[in-house]
Amino acid sequence: MSSPATIRLYDLAGADPDRRFSPYCWRSRLALAHKGLPVETVPWRFTEKDAIAPSGSLLVPVIVDGDRWIADSWTIANYLEDTFPDRPLLFGGAASRQLSRFYSCFADSLVSAIFPFVALDILHRVHEKDRDYFRQSREKRVGTTLEAFTATRDDRLEAFRASLTPLRLTLKTQPFFGGERPLYADYAMFGPFQWARTISPFVLLEAGDPVRIWRDRLLDAFDGLARAAPAYAT
Amino acid sequence: MSSPATIRLYDLAGADPDRRFSPYCWRSRLALAHKGLPVETVPWRFTEKDAIAPSGSLLVPVIVDGDRWIADSWTIANYLEDTFPDRPLLFGGAASRQLSRFYSCFADSLVSAIFPFVALDILHRVHEKDRDYFRQSREKRVGTTLEAFTATRDDRLEAFRASLTPLRLTLKTQPFFGGERPLYADYAMFGPFQWARTISPFVLLEAGDPVRIWRDRLLDAFDGLARAAPAYAT
Repeated sequence: MSSPATIRLYDLAGADPDRRFSPYCWRSRLALAHKGLPVETVPWRFTEKDAIAPSGSLLVPVIVDGDRWIADSWTIANYLEDTFPDRPLLFGGAASRQLSRFYSCFADSLVSAIFPFVALDILHRVHEKDRDYFRQSREKRVGTTLEAFTATRDDRLEAFRASLTPLRLTLKTQPFFGGERPLYADYAMFGPFQWARTISPFVLLEAGDPVRIWRDRLLDAFDGLARAAPAYAT
Repeated sequence: MSSPATIRLYDLAGADPDRRFSPYCWRSRLALAHKGLPVETVPWRFTEKDAIAPSGSLLVPVIVDGDRWIADSWTIANYLEDTFPDRPLLFGGAASRQLSRFYSCFADSLVSAIFPFVALDILHRVHEKDRDYFRQSREKRVGTTLEAFTATRDDRLEAFRASLTPLRLTLKTQPFFGGERPLYADYAMFGPFQWARTISPFVLLEAGDPVRIWRDRLLDAFDGLARAAPAYAT
């Protein structure tokens, strides 16, 4: 294997710079770990658009590899697979790369599904300079105040957990979506759950739920990389 | 490639023996076509448990390959991949096989999601001898009459279509879940939609929806195998 230069990851942080809570950045963080690449993460706040301007994106994750700036978690995953083909395969093969796309899109829908449970907790934990941006952009998106949006979360919990049935049935028969070992499909799906626990004490997953057992396996992966991050013990 | 013997597929049929409407049998039917295997399908009704008793299952799909009886769509797919490895790969590779499991489980949840739209139409189209079995087993499952269950379908349509967002986003960027060509993940997901159109005139998918465009591609696959089956032009 070649000895690549350290890759920089712009990583969404809260008021506490160590609180890294983006579901999309976590995908990229674990993808980088899967490839065994040296990483330097840079805490980034929602309003720091200038810092990532060379990427052409207004959102993280953004990585910088030498003089190349790459934005968007799916684009980053593909970049890593194509640039470091001699390192462990992130997708698992050519067909697996195609099959991983639905996981990424499904995980995006999980972010929307989890948002009512954590929206107000995010507001309280983002950097002060991000607070107005976060409230305004998210309230516009959900069509109500974050307070009203989050107030219904207990009523939504049963339906949310039921919506995880396809994940649960899969994970009853295999430890990871990728089989015996995690692949990018796992990291994509893990992102929303890691997001929730890094930002909110709300317990989304019941003890004993195969989805939670799988999540905990990913917390343990790479010497406990995701478990070591500031988070709540949900 | 070897010249395999004709495989028999027990295939759920309605009163019309040519109306083949099981979402699970369609998975196996297309998997057999993907492998290019000669197939003889046998119309089977819900109450014909004796005919498939050697498989140990009470439900179809069941295939018979020589003296081997194999039940359950996922088991059948794995059997075909392992028994005919020199024919086109159904999963696409080792990691892809693992990644396909979630598609199968997700498609199972689609069957549940689609059932309110087609339940009463199924009742009207099953064989007379299956009618009591179908009504009793399904009403027990859904906790109400099939008439009451189906009466709410128009109110459910918008939410159902919204629930397909992850499929839609994926299929906006690639023609099949498997990429440029369909894989088992596609056949698993196609089953519920083919089930709906073989048994009900209800229009689940809007014209122009990428999910419908993908479904139509699968109707065209294998020289229009699925399109040639008795169905409604939804």
